[in-house]
Amino acid sequence: MTDPTPRRMHLGLFLLGTGSHVAGWRMPGAVDSFQDLSAIQEIARTAERGCFDLIFIGDNLYADPAAHPSYTLRLEPLTLLAALATTTRHIGLGATVSTTYADPFTVARAFASLDHISGGRAAWNAVTTANPATAANFGTTHPDHARRYERAGEFLDVVRGLWDGWADDAVVADRASGLYIDPAGLRALDHHGPFFTVKGPLNIGRAPQGRPIVLQAGGSEAGLDLAARTADVVFSVVQDLDEARAAYAALKGRLPAHGRRPQDVTVLPGVMPVVGRTEREAFDTLAQLQGFVGERNALALLSDRLGQDMSAYDLDGPVPEIALPDSYHSFARVMLAKARREGMTLRDLYNLTAAARGHWVLCGSAETVADTLQHWFETGAADGFNIMPPYFHDGFTAFVDLVVPLLQERGLFRREYPGATLRDTLGLARPERA
Amino acid sequence: MTDPTPRRMHLGLFLLGTGSHVAGWRMPGAVDSFQDLSAIQEIARTAERGCFDLIFIGDNLYADPAAHPSYTLRLEPLTLLAALATTTRHIGLGATVSTTYADPFTVARAFASLDHISGGRAAWNAVTTANPATAANFGTTHPDHARRYERAGEFLDVVRGLWDGWADDAVVADRASGLYIDPAGLRALDHHGPFFTVKGPLNIGRAPQGRPIVLQAGGSEAGLDLAARTADVVFSVVQDLDEARAAYAALKGRLPAHGRRPQDVTVLPGVMPVVGRTEREAFDTLAQLQGFVGERNALALLSDRLGQDMSAYDLDGPVPEIALPDSYHSFARVMLAKARREGMTLRDLYNLTAAARGHWVLCGSAETVADTLQHWFETGAADGFNIMPPYFHDGFTAFVDLVVPLLQERGLFRREYPGATLRDTLGLARPERA
Repeated sequence: MTDPTPRRMHLGLFLLGTGSHVAGWRMPGAVDSFQDLSAIQEIARTAERGCFDLIFIGDNLYADPAAHPSYTLRLEPLTLLAALATTTRHIGLGATVSTTYADPFTVARAFASLDHISGGRAAWNAVTTANPATAANFGTTHPDHARRYERAGEFLDVVRGLWDGWADDAVVADRASGLYIDPAGLRALDHHGPFFTVKGPLNIGRAPQGRPIVLQAGGSEAGLDLAARTADVVFSVVQDLDEARAAYAALKGRLPAHGRRPQDVTVLPGVMPVVGRTEREAFDTLAQLQGFVGERNALALLSDRLGQDMSAYDLDGPVPEIALPDSYHSFARVMLAKARREGMTLRDLYNLTAAARGHWVLCGSAETVADTLQHWFETGAADGFNIMPPYFHDGFTAFVDLVVPLLQERGLFRREYPGATLRDTLGLARPERA
Repeated sequence: MTDPTPRRMHLGLFLLGTGSHVAGWRMPGAVDSFQDLSAIQEIARTAERGCFDLIFIGDNLYADPAAHPSYTLRLEPLTLLAALATTTRHIGLGATVSTTYADPFTVARAFASLDHISGGRAAWNAVTTANPATAANFGTTHPDHARRYERAGEFLDVVRGLWDGWADDAVVADRASGLYIDPAGLRALDHHGPFFTVKGPLNIGRAPQGRPIVLQAGGSEAGLDLAARTADVVFSVVQDLDEARAAYAALKGRLPAHGRRPQDVTVLPGVMPVVGRTEREAFDTLAQLQGFVGERNALALLSDRLGQDMSAYDLDGPVPEIALPDSYHSFARVMLAKARREGMTLRDLYNLTAAARGHWVLCGSAETVADTLQHWFETGAADGFNIMPPYFHDGFTAFVDLVVPLLQERGLFRREYPGATLRDTLGLARPERA
C-alpha cells in the first residue's frame, strides 16, 4: 500500500515592495512602485497560478529614505491584504503586525475580520520589531529583546484567547424568536497579565479557520521558544544547508515540550531565487542586479541589519569584529558567521546584504534551483520555502513558470489547492476552542 | 448668466450591519449577517448605482449580545473598506476609528494606505468612543468627555501632520541614477504634545487626495469645535427640522473662527428613511419593523444610548428624569428632548430608539420623502443626508430606486460622479501641504 498523501513542499511568496533585492526596481521593466495596487494584484495572481500556499507582506514602522526603498514606502499590510482578498480565491494572505507596537484586541479583531473577508485565508506574521527607530513614532522607548519577547508571548496568548471567544453556533439569527446571538456562545477572556488586561470577547464571530494562521520568523532562543509554542509556520533565515538543517532541527526539537508534533509547524527557509533558462542567464541576471547596487544604499541597509553605523569602516578591509547583542535579529548573526567563514571584505558583505538582506541567494538554471530545493526538502532542512523574488514581475514569473513545473513533475508540489482555507492548504486541522 | 454649478445634495450611506433598525434583520428576505462580504459588496454596488458620495461604517470596540446585533458582530472597518475598494470604482469609503483607543501613526498610515488602494476615496470617521465598556478591552480606564476631546484634537493634528510629511514628488524612482526617494521631499513631524510624541514621517507616500477626508459626528460643544476646526463632513443627530437648522447653523457659524468657509464642511443629518410606493406601504413597513422589536433588545439599546440601566423603570410610565452628563453622546440629549416635548412613555422612547437609535425616522411615499429632504436642504438644515436604511437590501433599494430619481429629476442630486476622488465628489480641493 502506498502512502496516499506524500509529503509535499509548501511555498510562500514574500512580498517586499519592489522585490527583495535592494536595487531590483532598477531592472529594465521591473515594477518600481509598491503603492500601485494593480501591480500587486498581478503578483498575487501569479502566485496563485503557481499554487503558492500564501503571499505575505513584511512591514516596518518608520521611514528611512537611505535604506531599502520598500522600507520607506509601502502600503499598510492589513488594508493591502484585504484588498487582495477580493481579487484572489485560494492563496493565503499573511500580514505582518508588531506585538510591540499594537494592542491585542485590535490585532485579534483585524485578523478575524480578514479571515471572514477572505473565506478563511488570513495569516498573522507576528513580529517583535527589531529596529529601535520605531519607538519615536509611538512616543515610547524601544523595549529590549527579552522584554519584547515576554510581551509577544502574552500578546499571542491574548489574541488566541480572543479568537476562541465565540462558539461557531453563537450566531443564531432566528427570525421567528428574534434571538440574534446566543449569549451562551460567547465567553469573556478576562485576561490579566503583566502587559495586558483584556476582557473580551471580540465583537466579531469565530473566524472561518477557527483561528487564523500564525507566522513567525524569530531565530533567537526566545524567538524559537515562542514559535515552538504558538506558530503554525516559521520562516528561517539561513545561508547554507547546514544552517538550514540546524535551524529546522532546533525548531522541530522544541515542539514536543509544548505537546506539538513535527507536522504541526511548517518550516520555510527564506531564499532569493535568481532563475535563468541556463546557468549563464541566471548569473548574468544576478550580476546585472548587483551592478545596480549603490554604495550608499548598501551601506545604509547593512547598518540597519547590523544595528550600527558601518560607514566609517574600510570597504575593502575585512569585516570588522563587532559586538552583536542578542537583541538584534538573526540576519545579523547569520551574515556575520558567513562573512567570517568565507573571509569576506566589508564590500562582499554589503553586496550580499544588498542582494537578499541576509537571506540565502540561490542562483542557477531552473533545474539547478529545483534540484537544490528538492535536496534541502528531502534532507531535513525545510518543509518548503519562503520565496523572495529579487524583483517583479520577471524575477518571480521565472520561478513560477520554470521551477514550479519541475517541482510538480517530480511530485514535490501540488498542482491545485486542496480546499478552501489556508489551513486546508497547509494540511492543518481547524482547531477546537480551547 | 446662470450659475454653472447649482448647489447639489450629498448623500452618505451609513452601514450598520443588518441595518439601522434594531430588528431589521427579521424582515422577510433581509440580510441577516454582517460577516458576509458578498452582501456588503451588493450594498456598496447599490449605493454606487445611486451615485452616493460615500459609504461609511460605524464601529464599536466591545461586544454586548443584548444590544443591537450589529454592535456585537461586525467586520473591522478598515479591512472591510479595503475589500470594498476593489469592487467599487467611485464611491467614497469611510471607516470609523477611535481617537481614544488607537494611535495616530497607525491611523494616519492605514488611511493613507486605503487612499492609495482606492485611488483617492478614503475617509476617516474620527470618533472619541462614548461607551466606557470599551476600556476593559484595552486595559485602561475610559477618559472623561473633556479629556477624550483634548486627545482627539491632538490626535487629528498629528494625523494631518503625518499626512503632510511627504511631498508629491518625493518618490523619484530614477532607474538611471539609482535614486528612489528624494530625502528633501520628506519632512519629520517631530510632534511633542500632552498625549502624543511622534517623530514621523510616515512610511507611505502622500495620499492621492493629499489628505484623506475627515468625517465627524460629535454634537457636544467640544465636538462642534473639533469638527469646525478639522472635519470635512459632519453627521448631525437630529429629530426635527428646527433641531437640524440649529445644528447646521451652530456648525457653520463656528467655521470663520478657524479660517474656514461654509462650503468647506458638508453637514449631513442622519435619517432613517422608510420608503413606500405609497404612504400606506411605507407605514405598513414601519409597523412591521416595530412589531419585530423585542422588549429585551430595545431596553438594552436604550440603556446603552442613555448610559444607564433603564430596566427598573415602568415601561408605560413617563420617561423618568435622568441626569445626563455632558460626557454622553448627542443621541441621548436629542431623544430625551423629543420625549419630553411629546410626552412620551418609556415604551415610546424605546420604540423610537429601536427604530433608528436616536436618529430621525422619515416614513412615507417616495414623493413625501423627496419633498421633505428637499425642504430641509433648501431651508438651512442640511447639505445632504446620511442615509441609514432600516434593513438591507429592500430597505435601501427602495430609497435608491424610488427617491434618488426624484431628487435627480429635480436637479437636486448628481446623475454621475464628477471625478475620480471623494474630494472631487464632495467638491473639495486637494489640499497643499501645510
